[in-house]
Amino acid sequence: MPKRAVCLISGGLDSCTTAAIAKYDGYDIYALSFLYGQRHIREIESAKAVAETVGAIEHQFIEIDLGSLGGSALTDDSIEVPDAGRDMDEKSREIPITYVPARNTIFLSYALAYAEVVDADAIFIGATAVDYSGYPDCRPEYYEAFQILANLATKRAVEGDPVEIKTPLIDLSKAEIIQKAKELGAPLEKTWSCYRGGKKACGKCESCVLRLRGFAEAGYEDPIEYEDDADDDHAVKPPAACGFGNKEKKVN
Amino acid sequence: MPKRAVCLISGGLDSCTTAAIAKYDGYDIYALSFLYGQRHIREIESAKAVAETVGAIEHQFIEIDLGSLGGSALTDDSIEVPDAGRDMDEKSREIPITYVPARNTIFLSYALAYAEVVDADAIFIGATAVDYSGYPDCRPEYYEAFQILANLATKRAVEGDPVEIKTPLIDLSKAEIIQKAKELGAPLEKTWSCYRGGKKACGKCESCVLRLRGFAEAGYEDPIEYEDDADDDHAVKPPAACGFGNKEKKVN
Repeated sequence: MPKRAVCLISGGLDSCTTAAIAKYDGYDIYALSFLYGQRHIREIESAKAVAETVGAIEHQFIEIDLGSLGGSALTDDSIEVPDAGRDMDEKSREIPITYVPARNTIFLSYALAYAEVVDADAIFIGATAVDYSGYPDCRPEYYEAFQILANLATKRAVEGDPVEIKTPLIDLSKAEIIQKAKELGAPLEKTWSCYRGGKKACGKCESCVLRLRGFAEAGYEDPIEYEDDADDDHAVKPPAACGFGNKEKKVN
Repeated sequence: MPKRAVCLISGGLDSCTTAAIAKYDGYDIYALSFLYGQRHIREIESAKAVAETVGAIEHQFIEIDLGSLGGSALTDDSIEVPDAGRDMDEKSREIPITYVPARNTIFLSYALAYAEVVDADAIFIGATAVDYSGYPDCRPEYYEAFQILANLATKRAVEGDPVEIKTPLIDLSKAEIIQKAKELGAPLEKTWSCYRGGKKACGKCESCVLRLRGFAEAGYEDPIEYEDDADDDHAVKPPAACGFGNKEKKVN
C-alpha cells in the first residue's frame, strides 16, 4: 500500500512545492485547505487547482473562524495590510501585523485529526524559516515541538506509530524553493501569494515582494499576473529600508 | 491588573469545576466553547450557564467541523454511541469509539490563539487522567508536550512570557472533582455530561455512568435529571464487565 500524506495546501508557492515533493516521495496525497476569513480567498481557487494537479486522492476544506478572535491584518478588516518595507528595517524586525495568532498550530491540529482519520503516515507543511518574516510558528524548533506533541496526541501514536511532521522547505530560501518547484514540475502558474484580495497580485505586499525577489534570484519569470502599477523594482532591488533577503544572502 | 485565563468550558462537570478553580485562583475568565457537530448540543446551553455563573468577561463560541472529517461516534451519525461496560472490560481497554481524533489538540490550539488575542496568562482545561477512558490526549505527558509547543508557538512566547497550560484536575478522580466543585460552589446543577442528545441525561452512556459513580462515591446527590429508565445501579455498583473506577480505587 502506498504511503499516505496529509498535505496542507494554501494555494501559495511554498505549499504547492511541498505537495510536489510529497508526490515525488511516493505519497498518496490527502489535501487539506482552510477558509479562515482571509482576504485572499483567491488562494482557495489556487489550492483546488494545485491539489488537482498533484493528483490528490481527496481534498478537505475546513472553515475556521479565526476572524471572530481578531488580532491580525489578514483576518481583521479594521487592520490595514502594510506594504513591504514599511516599518520593517533590520532593527525593528518585530512580529508583523500580518501574523495570525497560533495559525499554524490550529492548521497542524486539524491535519493531525485528518491524518488519524485517513491513517496517514505523514503531514507535509510548507513552512520555511529562511524567509522567516518574524512568525514564531515558522521556526524549526516549533515543528520539532509539534512532532513531540504528535508522538503523544493520537490513537496511532499510542499504538507506537505516530504520524511524521514533514517540513521539506524549512531550510530553503524562496529562490531555492522556486528552483526545487521547477525541478519537480510543480504547478507554480496556479499559485497565489498576494496578501491583498485583488484580481491580480498587488506586487507590493510583503508576500508579493518575497515572491518576486525569489523568482528574480532563481532566474525565472513569475508565471502569474501582477497589477500594472506593481513596482517591478521590488523584484530585483528591495528598498534599502527593507530587511528582506538578508538571511538569504547569508545562505547563498 | 488581574491575571487573565482562557477557560475551555464544555458544559460538563469537569470544565465547570476547572472554571471555578480559575476563578478562585484570581483569574479574570475568558470562556471558550466549541460547536463541533456533537450530538449533545445541550452541553452548549450548559456552557453558557456555567460561564455566566463564574462571571466570565466574555464567552467565545467557535464552530469547528470535525464532523466532515468523521471518525468518532460523537461526531459521526453513522456510528452508535455504546452503553458503558459493553466491550470495555479491563483486558480490552482500547481507545473508545467516542474518541474524537485530535480533539483536545484542536481545542488547545484555538485556546492558544484566543489567549494571544486577549493577552491571557493561562489556559485552563479540565482534563483528567484518572478516569482516563483511553483517550490519548488526556494524559499528563500530552499536556507537558503542549506546554513545550506553547513555549515556542506564539508572539508572547517569543517575548519570553509564554501562556501557561493549567490542568488542575489531571490527578483527580471524578469523586474528588465533585468534592472540589462542592467546596468552591461550582454550579454543577447547570452542567451536562451525557453523550446522547436527549432531554434528560440517559444515565447509561460511559459519561453518565462515570458521573453517577462519582457522585455516589463523593456522597452527594447529582442535581441534574436522568431518564426514568436510567439504571441507578450504575451509580453505586458498575457491572462486573465494566473497567471504570479501577484506577480510582488505586488512588483512594
